[in-house]
Amino acid sequence: MKFKLQAQDKLSKARAGEITTDHGTIQTPIFMPVGTAGTVKAVHQHELKDDIQAQIILGNTYHLYLRPGLDVLESAGGLHKFNGWNGPILTDSGGYQVYSLSEVRKIKEEGVTFRSHIDGSKHLFTPENVMDIQRTIGADIIMAFDECTPYPCDYIYAKKSIEMTHRWLKRCCERFDNTEPKYGYSQTLFPIVQGSVYKDLRVKSAEVIASFEREGNAIGGLSVGEPAEEMYAMTEIVCDILPEQKPRYLMGVGTPVNILENIALGIDMFDCVMPTRNARNGMLFTKNGIINIKNEKWKNDFSAIEDDSDLATDRFYTKAYLRHLIHSGEMLGAQIATLHNLHFYLWLVKEARNKIMSGEFYDWKKTMVNRLAQRL
Amino acid sequence: MKFKLQAQDKLSKARAGEITTDHGTIQTPIFMPVGTAGTVKAVHQHELKDDIQAQIILGNTYHLYLRPGLDVLESAGGLHKFNGWNGPILTDSGGYQVYSLSEVRKIKEEGVTFRSHIDGSKHLFTPENVMDIQRTIGADIIMAFDECTPYPCDYIYAKKSIEMTHRWLKRCCERFDNTEPKYGYSQTLFPIVQGSVYKDLRVKSAEVIASFEREGNAIGGLSVGEPAEEMYAMTEIVCDILPEQKPRYLMGVGTPVNILENIALGIDMFDCVMPTRNARNGMLFTKNGIINIKNEKWKNDFSAIEDDSDLATDRFYTKAYLRHLIHSGEMLGAQIATLHNLHFYLWLVKEARNKIMSGEFYDWKKTMVNRLAQRL
Ligand SMILES: [Zn+2]
Ligand SMILES: [Zn+2]
Repeated sequence: MKFKLQAQDKLSKARAGEITTDHGTIQTPIFMPVGTAGTVKAVHQHELKDDIQAQIILGNTYHLYLRPGLDVLESAGGLHKFNGWNGPILTDSGGYQVYSLSEVRKIKEEGVTFRSHIDGSKHLFTPENVMDIQRTIGADIIMAFDECTPYPCDYIYAKKSIEMTHRWLKRCCERFDNTEPKYGYSQTLFPIVQGSVYKDLRVKSAEVIASFEREGNAIGGLSVGEPAEEMYAMTEIVCDILPEQKPRYLMGVGTPVNILENIALGIDMFDCVMPTRNARNGMLFTKNGIINIKNEKWKNDFSAIEDDSDLATDRFYTKAYLRHLIHSGEMLGAQIATLHNLHFYLWLVKEARNKIMSGEFYDWKKTMVNRLAQRL
Repeated sequence: MKFKLQAQDKLSKARAGEITTDHGTIQTPIFMPVGTAGTVKAVHQHELKDDIQAQIILGNTYHLYLRPGLDVLESAGGLHKFNGWNGPILTDSGGYQVYSLSEVRKIKEEGVTFRSHIDGSKHLFTPENVMDIQRTIGADIIMAFDECTPYPCDYIYAKKSIEMTHRWLKRCCERFDNTEPKYGYSQTLFPIVQGSVYKDLRVKSAEVIASFEREGNAIGGLSVGEPAEEMYAMTEIVCDILPEQKPRYLMGVGTPVNILENIALGIDMFDCVMPTRNARNGMLFTKNGIINIKNEKWKNDFSAIEDDSDLATDRFYTKAYLRHLIHSGEMLGAQIATLHNLHFYLWLVKEARNKIMSGEFYDWKKTMVNRLAQRL
């Protein structure tokens, strides 16, 4: 993996860059659609590429490990071959889902035992086997196995947790560096800064993470329920420590406003289930604000979803029709709304990038933040 | 509406023809994808047109009447404008859903009272208001309001039922002929032959239906659980009575084999939820037989769903990936399988038409019937 900084904003810490992987390049800042179980829900691979213009997608290690399972993924020749998405893929470490989805779990120094939310079967994730699993899935960028603390989280717990996360990172790196990619293209490992909303813990964690000198770095444990101001404060502190010449990935964030604010603080990569999950419930993000398409006010609105969009779906279908589909629980509603939201998120980061390159980011961001938060 | 017979098979009663509506022409024999609530489940309108190459779709009056409701459909300018499907549309009369979906109902001479399966609200369908409703939905071909008898059905009930269906038809025609289309294009009314599996009742009903001299005729009350041989026997008797120069529509049928056998008996139009509903459960119809994609045997089969298909989706995705998606309940699985099945059904009727035109239908049908029924 290579990262090239291409531009830096004068009035903020926003940057534009380019990541090169063996599956293609990524223009940053970038948003990564979440493809949980090897599929971005309701979206065809050709739509991801041609309509949404995704440059990299995310896969969830926890889900893929349970289903289809490593045997299938390995015999397919990795996730790219399995699902037909030929661009870059990043996998998370599975930790977040273990903590949030599986019911029985024990966190020990060795690793985490949990039961599958599908069939109740018992499993163990350790820093070592999570590296092996991600090698087998075959992501271009793989994530360290960490503990993602909930919010709120008391100081003592958060402090002990980052210490374990750092010890786990050492084990992750050792395993990763002593193993080879399985499918002939290179993989890289990103470590994750934790520390809840405690400044000193975030500083400490960022320093430790930076000292591992991996090719990119991530920030986890944010957007878990804390006020946005706390999120931004943590991002700012951490970005000041993480090296400038390496990409910074803020995990699981967020709203369009969150994304612009964090770009302004120096973040290069984002992922979030919000555009896809909220789409299925009828929430549309647009450049003029947020639409809840289920509202009565759209019932007889036969205007296009977004008539000046370059997404054909936005111009073709009307608000009233989409409202009907979402109300009726029709799959086509989820398909249309998901295409719309992901297209919008990709448009947003591309526009941010253009503004950074042209030196207009700061003012543009101020205007957009107000518009994006409006309820239409 | 116009119908032109273009070719008749020498060794069977199969025919090829062309129906002309104000929304375009339909090459028969044809299969009509079912678009229950104004959407063919999981399928984009551009996919219907370009990938599946549907020539006409079906809408369900019962569903559309309840949701989005007539006020929305009327202010949209009819269903075509509402959902963006610009080709011909046929609507059923709502009767079938009233009998199968709504829990409380009373069938009287006046009409049928029922409660909505959505909110329990009480409604009345009569021959007259069902004509008005379909005028408002704006279908190109609208269906008479009939009683669709279940299987088995005793002779006395079936006899009384067709008598009422015939009286209702008279009311339907009177209302239809005394009202105008609402959106500037013409609409036509098809009456429906009933009579369960009783030959004399089917003969009687077919004679009465034919005597109304509408532009096309339908056969209902089949494919409701009776043996296939009984269905074919009824179709044959009825087709011999219904006029040759008008299209014949066999409602709610069926498997690929059912479709070929009924084409051989003189049917021109079909609809069925089977390709779409079964797709969502992982059943794929192919030219070599039926695939249950959930079976273990496809787990590591990384061959294309159908590599010699002219549907890009069939060539792009693998059986193993589709199996994973269906097992995981992922929407993309339903999307892929639905595209596949509908594309196959449209391929099948197009191929049947080509064989009728070239005089090869009879032998081709014999070969296909054996292949299509195989389990792969
Ligand atoms: Zn999020
Ligand atoms: Zn059927």
